[in-house]
Amino acid sequence: MRFTINREEFLKGLTTASRAINAKNPIAALTNVKLDLNENGLFITGSNRDLTIRILVPYFLNEKEIIRNYQQGSVLLNLKVIEFCREVKTEEVVLDVNDETIATISSSNGNNEMTLQCIKVEEYYDVDLDPDTTEITLTNTEFHEMVNQTAFAASLKEQRLILTAMNLEANNGMLTVTATDSARMARKEIRIPDNINFVANIPAKMMVEVDHLLENQEYITISIGDKKTLFSFDRIVVATTLVAGEYPNTKNIVPHATNYSLQVNAQEVLSAIRLANLVTERENVVDLNMSVEEVQISAKSSQTGSGVNKIEVFKFEGSNLRISFNSEYVSSAIKALGSEDVEFSFIGEMKPFVIKNPNDDSIIQIVTPVRTYY
Amino acid sequence: MRFTINREEFLKGLTTASRAINAKNPIAALTNVKLDLNENGLFITGSNRDLTIRILVPYFLNEKEIIRNYQQGSVLLNLKVIEFCREVKTEEVVLDVNDETIATISSSNGNNEMTLQCIKVEEYYDVDLDPDTTEITLTNTEFHEMVNQTAFAASLKEQRLILTAMNLEANNGMLTVTATDSARMARKEIRIPDNINFVANIPAKMMVEVDHLLENQEYITISIGDKKTLFSFDRIVVATTLVAGEYPNTKNIVPHATNYSLQVNAQEVLSAIRLANLVTERENVVDLNMSVEEVQISAKSSQTGSGVNKIEVFKFEGSNLRISFNSEYVSSAIKALGSEDVEFSFIGEMKPFVIKNPNDDSIIQIVTPVRTYY
Repeated sequence: MRFTINREEFLKGLTTASRAINAKNPIAALTNVKLDLNENGLFITGSNRDLTIRILVPYFLNEKEIIRNYQQGSVLLNLKVIEFCREVKTEEVVLDVNDETIATISSSNGNNEMTLQCIKVEEYYDVDLDPDTTEITLTNTEFHEMVNQTAFAASLKEQRLILTAMNLEANNGMLTVTATDSARMARKEIRIPDNINFVANIPAKMMVEVDHLLENQEYITISIGDKKTLFSFDRIVVATTLVAGEYPNTKNIVPHATNYSLQVNAQEVLSAIRLANLVTERENVVDLNMSVEEVQISAKSSQTGSGVNKIEVFKFEGSNLRISFNSEYVSSAIKALGSEDVEFSFIGEMKPFVIKNPNDDSIIQIVTPVRTYY
Repeated sequence: MRFTINREEFLKGLTTASRAINAKNPIAALTNVKLDLNENGLFITGSNRDLTIRILVPYFLNEKEIIRNYQQGSVLLNLKVIEFCREVKTEEVVLDVNDETIATISSSNGNNEMTLQCIKVEEYYDVDLDPDTTEITLTNTEFHEMVNQTAFAASLKEQRLILTAMNLEANNGMLTVTATDSARMARKEIRIPDNINFVANIPAKMMVEVDHLLENQEYITISIGDKKTLFSFDRIVVATTLVAGEYPNTKNIVPHATNYSLQVNAQEVLSAIRLANLVTERENVVDLNMSVEEVQISAKSSQTGSGVNKIEVFKFEGSNLRISFNSEYVSSAIKALGSEDVEFSFIGEMKPFVIKNPNDDSIIQIVTPVRTYY
């Protein structure tokens, strides 16, 4: 195997694929990037088994020759090849592989040369990247909002693995995406064609990774299988494993009735929360005190002191109410909404409450209050 | 004690003083910032005993009233006051202290208020900030170059405390600044008035901190005492302890004769070193191979592979020579010189070698080679 390749395109491909690679993977072959040069071009693959990223660098791109003077084949390369391509400044680099186990990469002016010992290609763990039949295509904005507005609410703890996933359910022309760590929940709804039906639990952190890779591509196609999901866009395919098990039933968590409703400026609430957080007794727990006269976010610590921060109210319906909550949960819910104003709806002191963008019904955030003693 | 103060000037003062504060200091009083409002204005002090920073916020600055509606006094404040001043958006904030132990800070519109419990002022460890008689004034450029070109060569290890200091020696109209960790050395010379004589060992990391604080002030005055050094500029005074003990005699380390001399582009060497570093056997050790035909920086690892990087030579005098060195030492020496070209002077394979800016004799870098076996 050998080829001369445009350095920037090669570097871009290597960097993209390497995002799936864990340099400390106990399976030595998976600490490498895999190159396959065939009639379509150069496939660059990185994988940690749970996540696989493959990108195609074609022979020609926008009528410009990217790969030339080549001989097809495959090789596993140490990630140091990325640093090499980043450091040298020539327009092209040359890769030359001897019997799979010795690869030499050099700058096209011959000044810089690095010889790498390679693990044999047979030792690589190849992931199935064939698409399944259930497919759905979303716009960049739909996918980005879906991930951005919900993924943060998934659990980070592996104890209940299913809660580290986002639950995607497609039926009756609606894709419903749910993430919860059991103390808070985010749910997004997206209109889709009527004939698509599936349920899949996809690791939230993989969705975030795919969202990063998507960059400014216009569309993304998601292909749902029994054990894996494929995401395809541009010249990239990403495969992630699904989380096994039944996702908890969250259908009845969204409260129907509301006794108190508060509409305020999002930035003002976030600022008041940051200020109250300076003097919390229990980490992150602050109080929201509402009355017709005034709304405040406050906190008190026997060690440090206390803080009171008034918020200008756009609209308030209800009577006096005091609610304690984990401020990190409320802050991230407000940020995820991304709206100028936010609307809180409460049933009572100890009931889960809703935070919404008053102008967008497709996304809902729910937070459970914290019990405090005075 | 009370005052209304311009929020930005207060925040700037608090932030500056807080750079000396270690939030985990076992002496609780020193985890606070100390405020003293007297006839000169507001003195804000932060200290960890080894390093003390005091800044004056005057009543008026450029004819603008900065502090008003005040009553003089002193207080120790929790650093949370910084976050408060950063978060609120009013032009002024108000501080109100009751009997030294309760301070309330609020935004001038009254929307945000934080009450802090305070440690009594008597518990603060006050550092002597009176200047000593031996003084020297340097320009910003002189001070910045002196620190930037030498401090990195001081030792980070506390085992031989004296090597964590920079040695400043003033006599015969010359300030000589030396830093060494015993494997490399940097020495800078600065012309000064004839009548100034002193020797001081100042912790290198304190010099770096002072250099950061100096920002774009034109001059800095250094006052040398028996146990402390004071740095004064703008409205800031910084005090650092000196390192006790005798600095090693480094006078005879600079080699006089030279058998090999090599002049090359600095960026090209740095790049070749980074590339060779990708495949080193011992961390950071690379080889410089010189001959009349070619100069290369190379490395070889039994695990990973090998690399060879040619360097274009501007000037070479001598015959074949191969030298192994710690590439981190050579790279930081080259970067400290800050010149386009660098000149290496060698005596032989195992002798310390010199790296210089061919156009500046005031700064010299010396590195000891590493012994390698093949």
